[in-house]
Amino acid sequence: MDVEKVRADTPGCAEVAHLNNAGAALPPRPVIETVAEQFALESLIGGYEAAERSAAVVEHFYDAVAGLIGAHRDEIAYVENATRAWDMAFYAIPFARGDRILTTTSEYSSNAIAYQQVAASKGVRVEVVPDDPEGTLSLDALEDELAKGDVRLVSLNHVPTHNGLVNPVAEVGRLCREHGVLYLLDACQSIGQLPVDVGEIGCDVLSATGRKFLRGPRGTGFLYVRQGIVQTLEPPFLDLHAATWKAPDGYEIREDARRFETWERYVAGQMGLGAAADYAMEVGIEAIEERVTALASALREELADRPGTTVLDGGERPSGIVTFTVDGHEPAEIKTVARQAGVNVNTTSPRSQGYDPHALPSAVRASVHYYNTEEELDRLLAVLP
Amino acid sequence: MDVEKVRADTPGCAEVAHLNNAGAALPPRPVIETVAEQFALESLIGGYEAAERSAAVVEHFYDAVAGLIGAHRDEIAYVENATRAWDMAFYAIPFARGDRILTTTSEYSSNAIAYQQVAASKGVRVEVVPDDPEGTLSLDALEDELAKGDVRLVSLNHVPTHNGLVNPVAEVGRLCREHGVLYLLDACQSIGQLPVDVGEIGCDVLSATGRKFLRGPRGTGFLYVRQGIVQTLEPPFLDLHAATWKAPDGYEIREDARRFETWERYVAGQMGLGAAADYAMEVGIEAIEERVTALASALREELADRPGTTVLDGGERPSGIVTFTVDGHEPAEIKTVARQAGVNVNTTSPRSQGYDPHALPSAVRASVHYYNTEEELDRLLAVLP
Repeated sequence: MDVEKVRADTPGCAEVAHLNNAGAALPPRPVIETVAEQFALESLIGGYEAAERSAAVVEHFYDAVAGLIGAHRDEIAYVENATRAWDMAFYAIPFARGDRILTTTSEYSSNAIAYQQVAASKGVRVEVVPDDPEGTLSLDALEDELAKGDVRLVSLNHVPTHNGLVNPVAEVGRLCREHGVLYLLDACQSIGQLPVDVGEIGCDVLSATGRKFLRGPRGTGFLYVRQGIVQTLEPPFLDLHAATWKAPDGYEIREDARRFETWERYVAGQMGLGAAADYAMEVGIEAIEERVTALASALREELADRPGTTVLDGGERPSGIVTFTVDGHEPAEIKTVARQAGVNVNTTSPRSQGYDPHALPSAVRASVHYYNTEEELDRLLAVLP
Repeated sequence: MDVEKVRADTPGCAEVAHLNNAGAALPPRPVIETVAEQFALESLIGGYEAAERSAAVVEHFYDAVAGLIGAHRDEIAYVENATRAWDMAFYAIPFARGDRILTTTSEYSSNAIAYQQVAASKGVRVEVVPDDPEGTLSLDALEDELAKGDVRLVSLNHVPTHNGLVNPVAEVGRLCREHGVLYLLDACQSIGQLPVDVGEIGCDVLSATGRKFLRGPRGTGFLYVRQGIVQTLEPPFLDLHAATWKAPDGYEIREDARRFETWERYVAGQMGLGAAADYAMEVGIEAIEERVTALASALREELADRPGTTVLDGGERPSGIVTFTVDGHEPAEIKTVARQAGVNVNTTSPRSQGYDPHALPSAVRASVHYYNTEEELDRLLAVLP
């Protein structure tokens, strides 16, 4: 990878050592320009007129994202964020009383809240598959639970927000297919930092955000729904884009994944997200993964060597998200000190950890991307207490 | 009103005669600059870091919108478009089998699709209140229907998208209060072109978009939910912003209208929408209404005088939306001819007209705003066949 070039493509690299890529990454120039130019065009000639003029680029979004994840363009919906992308699919599942949802200890509590809401309204049971000794979902335990029957859905994230691991998503996919169970994957923290191929993973539904490792604009996300199941999922909300009005009192839902969309949208953001997918493909996802993994490992090693500093990450296969604590110092304090030195990190809190019986404490989260450098990691290390 | 000034504030006025304000209006400079500057800041220092730096402006959105509609800031939710704002409230209503929904012949079919979806899933009846002779919802008929009982919801729009009228929303509000019935108002086409005061209207819930007459960015909208009822409406989707996770398996929904929001959002858009509300207040909603009404009336008169041209608008009180047909010419053709002459108009189609038993044909829609001029109307008239 030409690190000089990707940094030169990223105006923010000259401003800050950005280690908050699991929050929102710095966008590359093609994303910035696409969004800014469309927004300027809307302001000058009108929003609808600008969308008509940019129609080819708006449509290209579907090809770009489909190409990125190995899907067909008809399997992609543009949604304004990963939360609502996930919601539109999850709340579309026709659960029956007694159905079981299987998830993991590292599930994001936003999703856990949704499970519990459906548990309360529909009599669904939510069950948490135990971890293996490395802290990742135990595949043996998952298989045992699937064998017991009544599982309607296996739902987990690819990369948790808080504990540095990568879930064995393809192995989960194999088990779900064997048992004929629906598989929903939250790829919010994996898309853009490692390969996400829906065929290899074997998921039925996948939700993702634009702003994190994919380096797209805030307020953008997408949903993948496998062609074979899209018509079994009636969207919880419908509008005149998702369905066609049939007077006097009927409607017909469209047959592709865009049934989960609204007509109105942040068009400039959709175009920017397409540009972000193109850019990631151009840099190369394998090369991105390699560099992210190497930088994160280097940071973990340096941190582990420091007395009083504890690296909290688990799993056999680490992600680009590095979490740690420093004895006697609040994570928020470290975030502030780093910010003053031009280094962006974030903090994590137990309140975002859904079902973990051994929830991690509040911690500092340093999430690296391929445009980061060893020198930027050193800048963080230099300001740590 | 200082028309010179508002036009000078609007870069698009130098580019085009924009008569598609019911589609998406041209934003004024404060909106453009707010969005563009926040987006640039995100690109330079990171999305979360930019939001922290702009926190006061992000928060100001709630005050600005509350001020615009006479609400309290805790009654306002930022939602990515009016469709989803409306959805989050409508699908939250705990309908029971046999409940009646009353609406109008001029309802937008996007909302009609939602009614029919709930009719099918929950056994609710959707009933269309007949019009009075002017083509507006008959208040006598509404009162009769309310008196029959079982009405759970009265739901209508303030200004329909296609027929030029303004519904008598305050009179509807008085009847709803008398009968203790929930009142949902879709203000998509009224916000920004005429006064919308939730106290005067007496609605319980109101949804609106940013991009139309309010002159905000695309991909923005808001929801108002009256304080007294917000806790009776459980949002159909919940995330970690709308609710707090209570380990091991509980959650607590927040008590204000932000329970209908997501955490992730188009932050720059939210700030821009706040700026749009401020700008509308500064220009003055009464002055805006007066000028919009005058321009639309002038256009209707000119059109009515032309042989072969038919103005389709109904109602006693006309809006800024002017619809018409020209014998022997498709609306799409007229839109194209106008575009080539630097005039933006749009077309309407029967497919967006929900329950109208006498649906209007496809038509040209010229929607005026206060920054338009008589000269711009003449430019349109000059290119009509």
